[in-house]
Amino acid sequence: VKAEEPPALALDLGGTQVRAAVVTTPGRVGSAVRIPTPVDEGPDAVVEACVTALRQAWASEGAHVRPAAIGICTPGPVDPFRGVVVDPPNLGPRFRDVPLRDRVAASLGLPAVLDRDTQVAALAEGRLGAAVGATDYLYITISTGIGGAIVSGGRLLRGPDGGAGEVGHIVVDRTGPRCGCGATGHLEAISAGVAVARAGREAAESGRSPALRRAVAAHGASFGARHVADAEAAGDPVAAAILADARDAFARACVSFVDLFNPEVIVVGGGLVLGDAARWLGPANERVRREAFRLAGRRARIVPARLGDDVGLVGAYLLAVRGGPAAVDG
Amino acid sequence: VKAEEPPALALDLGGTQVRAAVVTTPGRVGSAVRIPTPVDEGPDAVVEACVTALRQAWASEGAHVRPAAIGICTPGPVDPFRGVVVDPPNLGPRFRDVPLRDRVAASLGLPAVLDRDTQVAALAEGRLGAAVGATDYLYITISTGIGGAIVSGGRLLRGPDGGAGEVGHIVVDRTGPRCGCGATGHLEAISAGVAVARAGREAAESGRSPALRRAVAAHGASFGARHVADAEAAGDPVAAAILADARDAFARACVSFVDLFNPEVIVVGGGLVLGDAARWLGPANERVRREAFRLAGRRARIVPARLGDDVGLVGAYLLAVRGGPAAVDG
Repeated sequence: VKAEEPPALALDLGGTQVRAAVVTTPGRVGSAVRIPTPVDEGPDAVVEACVTALRQAWASEGAHVRPAAIGICTPGPVDPFRGVVVDPPNLGPRFRDVPLRDRVAASLGLPAVLDRDTQVAALAEGRLGAAVGATDYLYITISTGIGGAIVSGGRLLRGPDGGAGEVGHIVVDRTGPRCGCGATGHLEAISAGVAVARAGREAAESGRSPALRRAVAAHGASFGARHVADAEAAGDPVAAAILADARDAFARACVSFVDLFNPEVIVVGGGLVLGDAARWLGPANERVRREAFRLAGRRARIVPARLGDDVGLVGAYLLAVRGGPAAVDG
Repeated sequence: VKAEEPPALALDLGGTQVRAAVVTTPGRVGSAVRIPTPVDEGPDAVVEACVTALRQAWASEGAHVRPAAIGICTPGPVDPFRGVVVDPPNLGPRFRDVPLRDRVAASLGLPAVLDRDTQVAALAEGRLGAAVGATDYLYITISTGIGGAIVSGGRLLRGPDGGAGEVGHIVVDRTGPRCGCGATGHLEAISAGVAVARAGREAAESGRSPALRRAVAAHGASFGARHVADAEAAGDPVAAAILADARDAFARACVSFVDLFNPEVIVVGGGLVLGDAARWLGPANERVRREAFRLAGRRARIVPARLGDDVGLVGAYLLAVRGGPAAVDG
């Protein structure tokens, strides 16, 4: 990122919210416009919400601002080279093969670049966040599910279908719980927010934890992993055991990643981890030091993500600046 | 590999045997010289055995043969860029930081190139074996232990310490048996020859399998995974269960690999698998089709290695021809 880069329009399309902002060098995010994603109204309404958010973000900065391009961060799977969003589960069943890049570009009259959220976040953390200077790193986000991206030798791994980097879908415990993807004992099925919430709900229903039972009663359908974390913080041993199990599976998965990739850094984001980074990353770093292969285990550091909620907008800006899909060394 | 490439000298240094041969385009291996590896006599004796094997291989083809270079395949860890063998466990405790490449080159008066056995095998299977034409593939060898290499987007993953690609050391069952590396429930601890043999020995000692008890009595310290496979072939249900468990863990690990790398092919070599490829690869292919992400799971094929025992010599020849460490697109 050179100091004289012009500003860019950045769009972060998620399942619940569309966010847009003007971003200036070196990744400074202006005031973001937020619009609820109209998933139920179909693809055209979602595309229109994206265009509206971008127009409002631009207008809020003033007509004198001249963005050079638009960067778009969307849920996968995508084809970043054609700028097409393929069929992300959280944008509704009708959202299939939408040429979002070209539709947004035509509406705003600016060139646009699009890529998958995890790849975009990895790019952003590598250029301006917790992995600056690294050529070999992973980005992992643990929230409702677990996603990520892998950078090896300065290159983002994609695979022929763009499907590489599904770091939540490695087996950790083949006798463990069933994953949303259909397999058994995947990392996501044990360590993700949805898994922690499910275990918390089960503990509440079985009567093992009065604290969790009260939390489920109070929050109903919105009971989630953060309520299990709250119960742990308040001293509930059942909640603590659920989260210890989630952190244990994550730490063991980190050993797998270090032995597979010999990374310099594993950057971990997502609300579940960032709310209590020491308790998640401490045991993971210790286990990697103890169990991974010697040189690789000594080198790897598992660290919290730095860019917070803006990671998608910052990464989208970097896409726009580079004029193509996410890449670390290109 | 162009048709007019000159022949090369190829060396495959293993823990039990040094093999050398003249290899001609496109990877045709001449009669190989085999010398037991004098591990107990120390590094100088091992280097001397390498030089002797290469000289004999060259002499056996006749003085008119003019090899252009020497390719060397050795156990890891290595530094391929400096041509140094770091400290491979199976070459003895004194074999540390040996500049094998330059010592062999000086003795023979030819340029030499050196790389790690798994990377060399991946190169060979990619150029002349089961992964020809693939830009995204894994090579996995299951014998006493489990090793491998990963190629993504046409590039071998190495990592800053050359430690990438330890595909045997991913957790599969966090409540499973302890791995030789110290971690718990790694793929190698369940699916490798050493794990199958250990389970077979335990079944023999516990009295659960009279067939395995007889095999242990007959073979003593040399009892190994192949005797468990023999007992399975003879109808022993305990041996069949041990191997079914090993294959199950392997199949689940393949789902992890497909979700991480979106490979076109996973090439599997090693005596344990190749002795009964259908029973190992059939369930793995089925599980990947069923449990991996849709596009990646449809694309990936898990196939047996093609180059057999010569894979190290063929790969070493390819190193010599390209004049540098293993790379797929370079």
